[in-house]
Amino acid sequence: MDELGLLERMRGNWPVLWVNVDGVAHAPTIAEIGRIFGLHRLALEDLGDVQQRPKAEVYDDEHLFITARMARMTPALDLEQMGIFLGSDFVITFQERPGDPLDPVRQRIRQNRGRIRRCGPDYLAYAVLDAIVDNYFPVAEAYADMLDDLEEEVLGTPTRATMGRLHGTRRELMSLRRAVWPMRDAITVLSRDQVPLFTPETLVYLRDTQDHCIQVMDLLESYRELGSSLTDLYLSSVSNRMNEIMKVLTIFAAVFIPLSFISGIFGMNVDHPDPVWWWNLPFAAGVMAGTAALVLLWVASRGWIGGGGRE
Amino acid sequence: MDELGLLERMRGNWPVLWVNVDGVAHAPTIAEIGRIFGLHRLALEDLGDVQQRPKAEVYDDEHLFITARMARMTPALDLEQMGIFLGSDFVITFQERPGDPLDPVRQRIRQNRGRIRRCGPDYLAYAVLDAIVDNYFPVAEAYADMLDDLEEEVLGTPTRATMGRLHGTRRELMSLRRAVWPMRDAITVLSRDQVPLFTPETLVYLRDTQDHCIQVMDLLESYRELGSSLTDLYLSSVSNRMNEIMKVLTIFAAVFIPLSFISGIFGMNVDHPDPVWWWNLPFAAGVMAGTAALVLLWVASRGWIGGGGRE
Amino acid sequence: MDELGLLERMRGNWPVLWVNVDGVAHAPTIAEIGRIFGLHRLALEDLGDVQQRPKAEVYDDEHLFITARMARMTPALDLEQMGIFLGSDFVITFQERPGDPLDPVRQRIRQNRGRIRRCGPDYLAYAVLDAIVDNYFPVAEAYADMLDDLEEEVLGTPTRATMGRLHGTRRELMSLRRAVWPMRDAITVLSRDQVPLFTPETLVYLRDTQDHCIQVMDLLESYRELGSSLTDLYLSSVSNRMNEIMKVLTIFAAVFIPLSFISGIFGMNVDHPDPVWWWNLPFAAGVMAGTAALVLLWVASRGWIGGGGRE
Amino acid sequence: MDELGLLERMRGNWPVLWVNVDGVAHAPTIAEIGRIFGLHRLALEDLGDVQQRPKAEVYDDEHLFITARMARMTPALDLEQMGIFLGSDFVITFQERPGDPLDPVRQRIRQNRGRIRRCGPDYLAYAVLDAIVDNYFPVAEAYADMLDDLEEEVLGTPTRATMGRLHGTRRELMSLRRAVWPMRDAITVLSRDQVPLFTPETLVYLRDTQDHCIQVMDLLESYRELGSSLTDLYLSSVSNRMNEIMKVLTIFAAVFIPLSFISGIFGMNVDHPDPVWWWNLPFAAGVMAGTAALVLLWVASRGWIGGGGRE
Amino acid sequence: MDELGLLERMRGNWPVLWVNVDGVAHAPTIAEIGRIFGLHRLALEDLGDVQQRPKAEVYDDEHLFITARMARMTPALDLEQMGIFLGSDFVITFQERPGDPLDPVRQRIRQNRGRIRRCGPDYLAYAVLDAIVDNYFPVAEAYADMLDDLEEEVLGTPTRATMGRLHGTRRELMSLRRAVWPMRDAITVLSRDQVPLFTPETLVYLRDTQDHCIQVMDLLESYRELGSSLTDLYLSSVSNRMNEIMKVLTIFAAVFIPLSFISGIFGMNVDHPDPVWWWNLPFAAGVMAGTAALVLLWVASRGWIGGGGRE
Repeated sequence: MDELGLLERMRGNWPVLWVNVDGVAHAPTIAEIGRIFGLHRLALEDLGDVQQRPKAEVYDDEHLFITARMARMTPALDLEQMGIFLGSDFVITFQERPGDPLDPVRQRIRQNRGRIRRCGPDYLAYAVLDAIVDNYFPVAEAYADMLDDLEEEVLGTPTRATMGRLHGTRRELMSLRRAVWPMRDAITVLSRDQVPLFTPETLVYLRDTQDHCIQVMDLLESYRELGSSLTDLYLSSVSNRMNEIMKVLTIFAAVFIPLSFISGIFGMNVDHPDPVWWWNLPFAAGVMAGTAALVLLWVASRGWIGGGGRE
Repeated sequence: MDELGLLERMRGNWPVLWVNVDGVAHAPTIAEIGRIFGLHRLALEDLGDVQQRPKAEVYDDEHLFITARMARMTPALDLEQMGIFLGSDFVITFQERPGDPLDPVRQRIRQNRGRIRRCGPDYLAYAVLDAIVDNYFPVAEAYADMLDDLEEEVLGTPTRATMGRLHGTRRELMSLRRAVWPMRDAITVLSRDQVPLFTPETLVYLRDTQDHCIQVMDLLESYRELGSSLTDLYLSSVSNRMNEIMKVLTIFAAVFIPLSFISGIFGMNVDHPDPVWWWNLPFAAGVMAGTAALVLLWVASRGWIGGGGRE
Repeated sequence: MDELGLLERMRGNWPVLWVNVDGVAHAPTIAEIGRIFGLHRLALEDLGDVQQRPKAEVYDDEHLFITARMARMTPALDLEQMGIFLGSDFVITFQERPGDPLDPVRQRIRQNRGRIRRCGPDYLAYAVLDAIVDNYFPVAEAYADMLDDLEEEVLGTPTRATMGRLHGTRRELMSLRRAVWPMRDAITVLSRDQVPLFTPETLVYLRDTQDHCIQVMDLLESYRELGSSLTDLYLSSVSNRMNEIMKVLTIFAAVFIPLSFISGIFGMNVDHPDPVWWWNLPFAAGVMAGTAALVLLWVASRGWIGGGGRE
Repeated sequence: MDELGLLERMRGNWPVLWVNVDGVAHAPTIAEIGRIFGLHRLALEDLGDVQQRPKAEVYDDEHLFITARMARMTPALDLEQMGIFLGSDFVITFQERPGDPLDPVRQRIRQNRGRIRRCGPDYLAYAVLDAIVDNYFPVAEAYADMLDDLEEEVLGTPTRATMGRLHGTRRELMSLRRAVWPMRDAITVLSRDQVPLFTPETLVYLRDTQDHCIQVMDLLESYRELGSSLTDLYLSSVSNRMNEIMKVLTIFAAVFIPLSFISGIFGMNVDHPDPVWWWNLPFAAGVMAGTAALVLLWVASRGWIGGGGRE
Repeated sequence: MDELGLLERMRGNWPVLWVNVDGVAHAPTIAEIGRIFGLHRLALEDLGDVQQRPKAEVYDDEHLFITARMARMTPALDLEQMGIFLGSDFVITFQERPGDPLDPVRQRIRQNRGRIRRCGPDYLAYAVLDAIVDNYFPVAEAYADMLDDLEEEVLGTPTRATMGRLHGTRRELMSLRRAVWPMRDAITVLSRDQVPLFTPETLVYLRDTQDHCIQVMDLLESYRELGSSLTDLYLSSVSNRMNEIMKVLTIFAAVFIPLSFISGIFGMNVDHPDPVWWWNLPFAAGVMAGTAALVLLWVASRGWIGGGGRE
């Protein structure tokens, strides 16, 4: 709470104040920060709901509230919510969990003495958004790799687990899309000329971020379609494998069932006019060999032998 | 009817009057309420049709009529229609069935002496709409749980009933979507600046409700896609199971049909030059063991043994 | 033709004239009516084409021509075209076939001395459109019932005919959608403020009809999706049934083929060192019983017995 | 080239000049015509590319260039490109191949002395477009017939060729859609009030053509969906047929494999305590008959007999 | 770096300067060029990212930055990024890799002394864009050929590799679509009247390029749908093949299993009242022949013989 008092005193004494709050669970702290900076009650409420849809909302033309969603692979997909308040002299960022996704922005501030120090809070807000959007590219790449692996597996020897993993990947791509899609809408709203908090100079940068956001969407869309195509491929692969199994069964049955029948005939205990010249072993063997050869020839003529190659 | 008379006297004496009517079946009551508050005939007609599509309609710039649809799990999905009339000094809500979905609003009025008491009827109408939309989140969560259970089942040992339940879930998600989609449109219409009944202050709140409504839509859309992906997963699972069954059949057939044939040969009652050194039990047993070993080796080389692991 | 003369004389003497023409095949009659009321040549041509797409067209800001499509179950789906001309003092309706779909409107005129008698031709045109749109609700309900029946069948014991009926239902839903979709567009065009023939008062009513039309569209869309989900369900049901059949085959084969082989061994006519203690019936029976028990145990361990329950 | 000279002299002497050019391969002729009428270089280039996308382009508010695509069944689908230039006093049409698709227009000019002679070149251009669009209706009907035939085949006894034909039909419907879709866009552009070359009177006619074009689109869309539904139907039919085959196999196997086993038992050459009262033919026959009856009863209880009816 | 100095001196002395840079990896060179021509920092950054989404961005109404994607078959699909800067007196093109895709433009400059020499840098930028878009047509044609080959294979004797190739083709079509779609958007933005760098004359040309771009999109869309239809066709083909295999198995089993059983009966070593008149070879042979004939007749009556023709 001391820090909050310090915060109150700092307000107004710096051209741009960046406050980064880790964790959104402690309601009184958030309420106090809201009081200091005059943040809208609805925005503070939305902060607490970590399932918030990414959006941008302007209150009284003076405060801008943006919720975004950061993506990381840790190594599972982790979508963390971030709330950004932009006022005429401050930027406040609320992270759902402590972490360093905004480190690139901090480093830009420390190292690059140029633009980010010279510019106002709108450029800082842009830098935060840009860092969030740029974070999606390595995530998207991770999914591209996953889909490549899955494709290799499906084209090779797919197992039941392959399909499970494919389903899981499709499911996570849906989550990603649900995070990126509204973020694109929010940035589109900002990048039009309607929000007075952004200078025209920053708007050019924001449009670049918007382009990157759309690019992420494009990637996710085509991964989705790829996932759907892989499902088709998997199903056809299972069907092919079934065909192969059935061909083996059919060939075995087609060759040996007639042979068994012939041996059964020669095994009958019936009366037959004795002596029969053909009721002996060599003749029986000959009949069987001939039958087997005929069946195999017929099967081969249908292209069923060497199944791997044909099917 | 006495209550209706009381209602008539109350009208005009309070800055905001909230009338909540349970049940829409008693036409004369509804007609009488319509007369007292000057409600439009079409709106009253729509009240009686409980299959009404959610919508918002302004009559003469003075009355706003909203139909919405409340969702509850009881434990089956229950979509109840609610009609809301908003005038300059009253809010009338018509519930299809008695119940307490507006309890949160009532409690806000009783407890929170702040905003909801100070503000006009437009804020009350917003509060009702907000309560309705917020009710969808636990419902959506219930479907998320259902889909998780179904996913586990499909990845485990799916039965025919799994597919039936999956279909039922998809069907209910369609109903939900059919309820939420037009509600989003109605709120979007209201949250633009075109309806003079809403103050700019309330519009900010209404936009928040609109965001929540879109978020519900997003969730339902991705559940729908998830349901479709689960159907694919189920179908592939059934195919895999078929493959497994066929492999068992094929291995049994491939091993025992040749063996049967060999035993059939040694069972033939044919004349053979006696004594034949190989026409005895040990030799027959050896031939059979060798054949079985060959077939099993070949089958194993195709990766068909230990089917669970490979397929 | 006498009636046409009468018509000509009546024109101008009544504030609103409603002419209902059954059948559109007799070209001269239609041409004559067109001449009397000054209808546009293109509209008259469109009347003759009973496959016309529903639309609304304004000619010279004075005449409005609407084509709509009425749906009935008789008991097959019957989509009849209706042409409606609206002028400043007349409404002319052309039905494709004689029938009574507009009876509700006539009864409203006869009974309800109120609005429909007081109002101008635009309200009459609205009443006709409203009757047409309202006619779709029982039709949509009939399809809901059909889909319910089909769902029950698919979840029970689907036959090949089930799939045929499902396809037929989907096909008719496409026809319905093709009729309702452009009708919605036409009504949307009318319900905006652009057509001077409609008074603002009637526009409120027209927007209600538009809402109903959109509601029909929503229903049809979700029936379409339901039909698609039922197709999935059916296919999975067929696959499940196949699995069941294959399991029976595989169990029979797995149990009896080894037993046959064993009986074949004991049936061999080979020389064996006599007497062999185990070459007798009880021992053979014991071996067979043991084998059968082992196979059955193994099959049961895979969960294949009691197939209905598991699969 | 003489004709071209003649053309040059005719220009300006007639209120409306219609030039119809068969074939677009002879570049110098086209260039010369372009020079005479002042056509834009890009439009002339597009003429030569017979795979041009239908479009409408206005050059300098004075020339309109339309490319359209005519459809005919000859009896295969034949999509011919047509280029139309419209100036203030001329219409030039370029056909890809000689033929008579514009005969209806010519006949309208010759017979109907009315409108088409009185009106300007814009009406002539409309008449050409209208003839092109109307040509799609018989083509669409031909595909409706094809799909009806395919549906009958799929519901009857589908063969592999059925699926091939279905695929071919779907492919041609795609081509048609690719031709009609942009044509609709082009006509929509023209039928708005933006092109000064069209009089308001002709615009009414053009909107009618636009309606027809949308109607063709609707038809093609529903044929596409029908094709997709037929594919589902076909796949389910193949699966059903497979089920039927498997049921026959399973019944044969379930009945005869146990019987074979029993006959194998009675065929064993084992020592058994002689005399055994049940080791005789009538007893063996009784056991077999009993077994067969049991199996058949069990199979019948699953509803597998009379497969055509149940499955 | 000398060349860069030369470049600086050339700037301003020529009405139009076209600089083509091969490779974007050498950052200092790019930075220097950016300094000379006053290019925006963001655009230079985007140049380095070769996965950039095609877009068009105007900076300060003075510079236009376009990223496009060139497609070539070499013979695999190769999508190279190209960056285009357009200023009032220069065009700078950055190719990802050295190559000659802009040769057609260079030849047009060298040969055609006309338009491209007379016009300003906007026409040159158009020419570059046009060359890029036109390059897609042979690529699209290559995919049309691939799909034709695949269709022939699927309708003939599809193998597992067919499905893999089909999947690969669908995947590459997705990449192409992801390249063309945003390019179309970018060109659409340019071809509206909003970019002052383009003269109205050039805009006409740009709209032609836009049409070509949309045409490429149409082609890719229908190839995508074709790929999806081919997948259906392939799956149905695999199912058909399975049916064929199963029919062979079933016929073999249905004919020979009963025969084996009969021979088993005659092979029983049971006591039977001797002499039995029918316990001899000719009678046994007759029973077998009769059984086989009956089964074959029954099978033929189901249309299972001559499977290729029926199925």
